[in-house]
Amino acid sequence: MNFKASQIAEFLKGKVEGDPEAVVTDVSKIEEGKKNTLTFLANPKYSKYIYETKASVVIVNDDFVPEKELKVTLIRVPDAYQALAMLLDVYERSIPQKTGIEQPCFIDESATLGKDIYVGAFAYIGQNVKLGDNVKIYPQSYIGDNVEIKDNSIIYAGAKIYRSCKIGQNCIIHSGAVVGSDGFGFAPDENGEYKKIAQVGNVILEDNVEIGSNTTIDRATMGSTVIHKGAKLDNLIQIGHNVEVGSRTVMAAQTGIAGSTKIGEECMMGGQVGIAGHLNIPDRVKFGAQSGVPNSVKKEGTVLLGAPAIDATNFAKSAIIFKKLPEIYRKLNEIEKTLNDITKQ
Amino acid sequence: MNFKASQIAEFLKGKVEGDPEAVVTDVSKIEEGKKNTLTFLANPKYSKYIYETKASVVIVNDDFVPEKELKVTLIRVPDAYQALAMLLDVYERSIPQKTGIEQPCFIDESATLGKDIYVGAFAYIGQNVKLGDNVKIYPQSYIGDNVEIKDNSIIYAGAKIYRSCKIGQNCIIHSGAVVGSDGFGFAPDENGEYKKIAQVGNVILEDNVEIGSNTTIDRATMGSTVIHKGAKLDNLIQIGHNVEVGSRTVMAAQTGIAGSTKIGEECMMGGQVGIAGHLNIPDRVKFGAQSGVPNSVKKEGTVLLGAPAIDATNFAKSAIIFKKLPEIYRKLNEIEKTLNDITKQ
Amino acid sequence: MNFKASQIAEFLKGKVEGDPEAVVTDVSKIEEGKKNTLTFLANPKYSKYIYETKASVVIVNDDFVPEKELKVTLIRVPDAYQALAMLLDVYERSIPQKTGIEQPCFIDESATLGKDIYVGAFAYIGQNVKLGDNVKIYPQSYIGDNVEIKDNSIIYAGAKIYRSCKIGQNCIIHSGAVVGSDGFGFAPDENGEYKKIAQVGNVILEDNVEIGSNTTIDRATMGSTVIHKGAKLDNLIQIGHNVEVGSRTVMAAQTGIAGSTKIGEECMMGGQVGIAGHLNIPDRVKFGAQSGVPNSVKKEGTVLLGAPAIDATNFAKSAIIFKKLPEIYRKLNEIEKTLNDITKQ
Repeated sequence: MNFKASQIAEFLKGKVEGDPEAVVTDVSKIEEGKKNTLTFLANPKYSKYIYETKASVVIVNDDFVPEKELKVTLIRVPDAYQALAMLLDVYERSIPQKTGIEQPCFIDESATLGKDIYVGAFAYIGQNVKLGDNVKIYPQSYIGDNVEIKDNSIIYAGAKIYRSCKIGQNCIIHSGAVVGSDGFGFAPDENGEYKKIAQVGNVILEDNVEIGSNTTIDRATMGSTVIHKGAKLDNLIQIGHNVEVGSRTVMAAQTGIAGSTKIGEECMMGGQVGIAGHLNIPDRVKFGAQSGVPNSVKKEGTVLLGAPAIDATNFAKSAIIFKKLPEIYRKLNEIEKTLNDITKQ
Repeated sequence: MNFKASQIAEFLKGKVEGDPEAVVTDVSKIEEGKKNTLTFLANPKYSKYIYETKASVVIVNDDFVPEKELKVTLIRVPDAYQALAMLLDVYERSIPQKTGIEQPCFIDESATLGKDIYVGAFAYIGQNVKLGDNVKIYPQSYIGDNVEIKDNSIIYAGAKIYRSCKIGQNCIIHSGAVVGSDGFGFAPDENGEYKKIAQVGNVILEDNVEIGSNTTIDRATMGSTVIHKGAKLDNLIQIGHNVEVGSRTVMAAQTGIAGSTKIGEECMMGGQVGIAGHLNIPDRVKFGAQSGVPNSVKKEGTVLLGAPAIDATNFAKSAIIFKKLPEIYRKLNEIEKTLNDITKQ
Repeated sequence: MNFKASQIAEFLKGKVEGDPEAVVTDVSKIEEGKKNTLTFLANPKYSKYIYETKASVVIVNDDFVPEKELKVTLIRVPDAYQALAMLLDVYERSIPQKTGIEQPCFIDESATLGKDIYVGAFAYIGQNVKLGDNVKIYPQSYIGDNVEIKDNSIIYAGAKIYRSCKIGQNCIIHSGAVVGSDGFGFAPDENGEYKKIAQVGNVILEDNVEIGSNTTIDRATMGSTVIHKGAKLDNLIQIGHNVEVGSRTVMAAQTGIAGSTKIGEECMMGGQVGIAGHLNIPDRVKFGAQSGVPNSVKKEGTVLLGAPAIDATNFAKSAIIFKKLPEIYRKLNEIEKTLNDITKQ
């Protein structure tokens, strides 16, 4: 890329402050900005860096008021983060897209392929697979028998989709993610040996779902494990069999949801959250990182933290006192003694 | 599938109550049952759904007593869950099994293959590998040099088995699982740089072991990391080098066992449990989800919870009081003050 | 292998005590030592096994004083663990190394390959990839466009490296690890739908970095996610976008670091640690297993534990009192009552 500040400002419908001829050839973070790069300032926590950054052009919010002299050229816009996101998007689109069928790959003759698709080398497309238009199957990914993937979805290198799962439009599945492996179901037989319960259901990802790398989503025992429209799952997440994740719910990395739990819409989970099986979580519930959730949540919009998870403010307050437990215990014993002395008198 | 209630009842040695001619073509969960499906009721928590389900036939326990009028046909059996498991098994077996050698795949000429095996496209079979009868190696899996896999075991797409590991009979290894990667062993040299300790041991999975997707089991420094007969490991579990997991022990997803720890038989771990290294856990110990275990456990059958893990009942009681810590601290300070006033008098 | 005690002693510059002609053909752990194996004793916890081990030769520290009669031959060295590490290294090097290009593999014609490299079957080498001398790309791994991998690095079976990432010299990346998948970045649009923020940065692994199996390291939004020289990451770890991990920092399995956090040099994390985003962790900080870290740490060398993480000694003491919370609460209420009775008098 090679743009002048004035060109970028025009694209963003922003206003240049400084040198409109300043040239940028790459993007950078404000705290490590290099010459001839474009950066942005949205989070006030990073304001201090704008006075020292070596970046040439900085996108800022309209209301940004410098506290010192600035050497950089500014582009003022209503929302600096959104403007940046727009530019990154343009930047990303400038990378040539993969198309065509690389060889060798394995495409069963019963599979049906849409227009303008990409199938990378060593990808495996099983029997009766249906791929929509513009689907991209990166190298070494596995699309099991009877899987359906709708338009514009991307399956990155080495992702694995077991038989009969359904992937909606505009989904992204990152490398190493496994969709549709067997749910964890066993019943002890008369000798105490665990006998496997066959898992005959599938996984459904609705439209606009993104699945992070090495995340695992188990197929349902019967019926479907469902990730609803627009939900976003980070890396290394575990979704048990028959779980349902509501629309626009976002989960940070390493979270685990045990079997048959139903998560509402627009919920948010921090990293490493664990939710037990057969629970019901209503809409807009937020769980802080590492929360452990043994019971269903009753009220929409609840904010929880801790293991077992309780009201987040309560947890924060209790956690402060937790540090003082040795002091509390000592005091309590002293008081008890004093009181004994008094009452004995 | 296409069966009458009477046929299913005959197969299950159960008793029809309702229409013996009711036809089912699929299975479903009771809470989302569709017309012409077969479902089951075993967990009393789900009893309410039997009155509204649209499923046509429901398998129930012999002692089920309806509280309202039922529109569905019942099949009464001694154990509804087991009966269902039996049916799911039949259903699963009706799916055509993979056999034969798909091309291209890589089979070293020194490898020996049993009868009726499946090797999927892009699978890699290294030097001196031994595969038993009826072994299924799905596409893109990696079987390193000198690996041995016994009869009837299934390696799903993209699972990786490093050199010299041994897999027993009837094992299942799901996609993305890694068996035999190097244990995490380093020793600082004179300059404080970490030097790698070569990991020359292997991993042994005994018969009837199931390993979930993206689970990792490290090879031993020397000797073997061993998963004993009939143990079942869920997804995204970490097993450190030289760990031993006892027979019929089951671990839920995202649990981690650090190096050289020995887990007894028939233990149970909830999700996200962490067990430190070099510990000894006797038989039939149960750890609640997210337990953190810094020390060996002395008594068989102990039930633990929390981090650090303590007696589960104790933990549950303490967790309730944890919420009241701010109140406790406030009261304690008041009491102290009152008592000071009294004793000063 | 087939060595006499005297030969090993000579190699290690150690001293034989017992039969210099004792022959060993393999290595073993002291607690499960078999005849004709070599083992070692470094950790005093394992001393009791030396009197019963069936191993033929044991490497011990110079200052080891037996408490009973020994049947084994000893080799005394200044540091038994280091001596063993040296031997394991020799043992490992005796395994024939992979070289050459196995077919079929996919190597884009624009890629440049160093000397003596290995490319396994079904490996994918994209456009403009640069591989240094002696690089080993195991089967089914994916090296995206513009990736650079320097001399002597090993990429094990099925590891995936997304486009434009840089891997230093002497790095090891284990099976299933994903380097360079998209950071988890979304911004809600006017309808509350999450819009993806393009992640246009990359990941840089400096020299001597080891990455465990199924670990995921996300590419930066802009700039680079960096793992500095000599850092060692175990299995199933999550590194968010724009994170920086300092030199010689070691992380045990299942740890997660959220986006934009900066970890200093020579830090140590136990298993399942979680560190929030945008934090700063100075050098030589240690986190006990399962620590949860919501805030930056100020002082170098701090030792933390718990969730939220506090001073480790404080945590240990508080955790002991945590068990007594029900007792504390009961006592407190009794005291309050007694005191009320007194003050009412």
